[in-house]
Amino acid sequence: MSENTAEVKFLAGVKIVDLTQFEAGPSCTEALAWLGADVVKIENPKMGDPGRRLRPGQPDNDPYYFHVFNANKRSVTVNLKSPKGLDLVKDMIRQADVVIENFAPGAIERLGLSYDVVKAINPGIIYAQVKGFGEGSPYEKNLAFDMIAQAAGGTFSVTGEKDGPPTRPGFSLGDTGTGMLMAISILGALYKRRETGEGHRLQVAMQDAIMHYMRINFATQGLTGKAAERGGSKVPGINNAPMGLYPCAPGGPNDYVFIMTSRANPEHWDRLLKLVGREDLIGDARYATPADRVAREAEVDGIIAAWTKTRTKHDAMTAVGEAGIPAGAVLDTMELHNDVTFEERGIMQTMIHPVHKPFKMPAWPVRVDGKPARIKHSPVLGANTAEVLGEWLGMDAAGVAALKSEGVV
Amino acid sequence: MSENTAEVKFLAGVKIVDLTQFEAGPSCTEALAWLGADVVKIENPKMGDPGRRLRPGQPDNDPYYFHVFNANKRSVTVNLKSPKGLDLVKDMIRQADVVIENFAPGAIERLGLSYDVVKAINPGIIYAQVKGFGEGSPYEKNLAFDMIAQAAGGTFSVTGEKDGPPTRPGFSLGDTGTGMLMAISILGALYKRRETGEGHRLQVAMQDAIMHYMRINFATQGLTGKAAERGGSKVPGINNAPMGLYPCAPGGPNDYVFIMTSRANPEHWDRLLKLVGREDLIGDARYATPADRVAREAEVDGIIAAWTKTRTKHDAMTAVGEAGIPAGAVLDTMELHNDVTFEERGIMQTMIHPVHKPFKMPAWPVRVDGKPARIKHSPVLGANTAEVLGEWLGMDAAGVAALKSEGVV
Repeated sequence: MSENTAEVKFLAGVKIVDLTQFEAGPSCTEALAWLGADVVKIENPKMGDPGRRLRPGQPDNDPYYFHVFNANKRSVTVNLKSPKGLDLVKDMIRQADVVIENFAPGAIERLGLSYDVVKAINPGIIYAQVKGFGEGSPYEKNLAFDMIAQAAGGTFSVTGEKDGPPTRPGFSLGDTGTGMLMAISILGALYKRRETGEGHRLQVAMQDAIMHYMRINFATQGLTGKAAERGGSKVPGINNAPMGLYPCAPGGPNDYVFIMTSRANPEHWDRLLKLVGREDLIGDARYATPADRVAREAEVDGIIAAWTKTRTKHDAMTAVGEAGIPAGAVLDTMELHNDVTFEERGIMQTMIHPVHKPFKMPAWPVRVDGKPARIKHSPVLGANTAEVLGEWLGMDAAGVAALKSEGVV
Repeated sequence: MSENTAEVKFLAGVKIVDLTQFEAGPSCTEALAWLGADVVKIENPKMGDPGRRLRPGQPDNDPYYFHVFNANKRSVTVNLKSPKGLDLVKDMIRQADVVIENFAPGAIERLGLSYDVVKAINPGIIYAQVKGFGEGSPYEKNLAFDMIAQAAGGTFSVTGEKDGPPTRPGFSLGDTGTGMLMAISILGALYKRRETGEGHRLQVAMQDAIMHYMRINFATQGLTGKAAERGGSKVPGINNAPMGLYPCAPGGPNDYVFIMTSRANPEHWDRLLKLVGREDLIGDARYATPADRVAREAEVDGIIAAWTKTRTKHDAMTAVGEAGIPAGAVLDTMELHNDVTFEERGIMQTMIHPVHKPFKMPAWPVRVDGKPARIKHSPVLGANTAEVLGEWLGMDAAGVAALKSEGVV
């Protein structure tokens, strides 16, 4: 498999002091790690990032959450509540290009690592912060998890059945979606810094970031003058049929195919009729225009479903796609996991870990000269303490041992 | 409002030849434009980016889709099917740092701007491509729209009611989510290029990119050994109650609040009971542990809902949040639009356009030194042709006029 991947070194030499935890922050630094940055997680010596879900006295049988957000990073344990620990991190910050944190509001200041403090130590630092709600928002001091930010950022309101309640999108856009926007801004600041050496403070809030992913809903609102609606698996505002989910054999919970004919391509409808064996309806005035088909949407959907029900979703996707009509089977995580073509292309890679069992996971999906970045395992808590303190600060083994005996690292 | 925003110049001087259309590509280049890159859209002189939705002979009353994905860019019209037009774009590519396209599979090669051709013109170019399915995927040649990629990338399978069909997340993660990952990789390549001058080919597929946003679902699968499930507005895999959506007054379609008590914080339940006036249940053995409350989830939800139904979602969010329990009202696009605090913070900005009416939209949400990047209007088709050809290629007005008279620009 390693022939399908390559080490990406775009950010080689970039040093990141990573004070983040859970997902919104770690997803950001992981993106930078995939590109070759030296991302050093600073972790509490006892438990580390709570995203590790270490449970004292119990087997650590749930490392997956940690793996997926912390590939290709290193881990240094530091007790930030000890004065020596804090000084150690300040020494690291002097050597760093970027510091990033996503603690609860006010926590980084209480730790003694506010922007003013850090900037005084290293005027060229890029200081990045991820919070739930923005500075100046009425909810500035509130805690947020992904679901809270998604509810307050609008995604629930546009997801779900037309006449049903708002619904949670089943993935963590509030966290990873926010982390990606911060990664972009950090990279912009790094690019500039390479020329000027200048530092900056970057701040993003999850609620604000989510609206970025909903710009199409805001655009629809601009046209209709009404709040963007939800429409089950139909797309409100697109007046065309057939479009949507169609049930497939053998009728399992995810046995559906999404088919989308285009208003701009009248031949899609004729091609689809031919495929489903209903050439008799080609040219039928009842279904001639997109408006006609929308008016008879239940009938139209029935015509298509009568055919899809006799095919598996994979067969339906292939046949409809080959007929030149966009189609996508609804795939679940196990089906994606088991599809070897993702591994063959390096999109899924297996993390070989010194402690935990091998774990196949999505890798950074952008290919560089044909190959995605190669995965390195998530770090064991504190495994890189001596190594990083040596490389970054020139500390020798005796120095690290002394700090360890004092409970600083 | 301009005092709340600032021009961000991180990427000042970076020249991008932008051949993208609709959303997946334009969202990527827009991110770079917010950071100060000179993003020049190359558009067909007749219709431009189909995302403009220009309708010949009809008033262009739907510019919003175009606005939201094309802020802060410039537009140059070029007829790529004319030999002179193709040469002109090649001349621009010689001056550029990045070229990006998201045409249908095979189209860029047919245009005569394949990677090999472009690399020969400019060996230092970063050449970026966004497609629906990856090179080497069985669906490599298929067309994809956002919904198709989301179905095939897994998001439908984890969204919707537990016993209901898979459901479309109501926003365009397949497009913008992919664009963000490509922006990150382009910025990594630009950082390296500043040192070495080296060019690279970058490729991303929407189906692959979506899996990046579903890593938590893959992590859950790692733990359970089963495909990640959907659970309405509950989060499958988190065994705690109360957690979820609770109905609020006056009972409109989005009058709900998401409340999330934490397993790790047993006091959340007691605080919530106090808030809702049910101190009588504090310490009640029936609801003592997370497991007890999950076993009686309908009862527990009823206790909370009896209170939330008497409050608006805003009041409920405020009260629950102030009690130290994470909570988020379900806000719709109109409520977000009308909340002036987003404008005050520069998160929402109004695009003042020379042709279309002013439009308030989400701006790039990451603040630099306290201020988000200032919006500039989306370009009128071809409005910057003479200006860009002058700046980039040193062409004078007569040269541009000659090209115009020949139908090249």
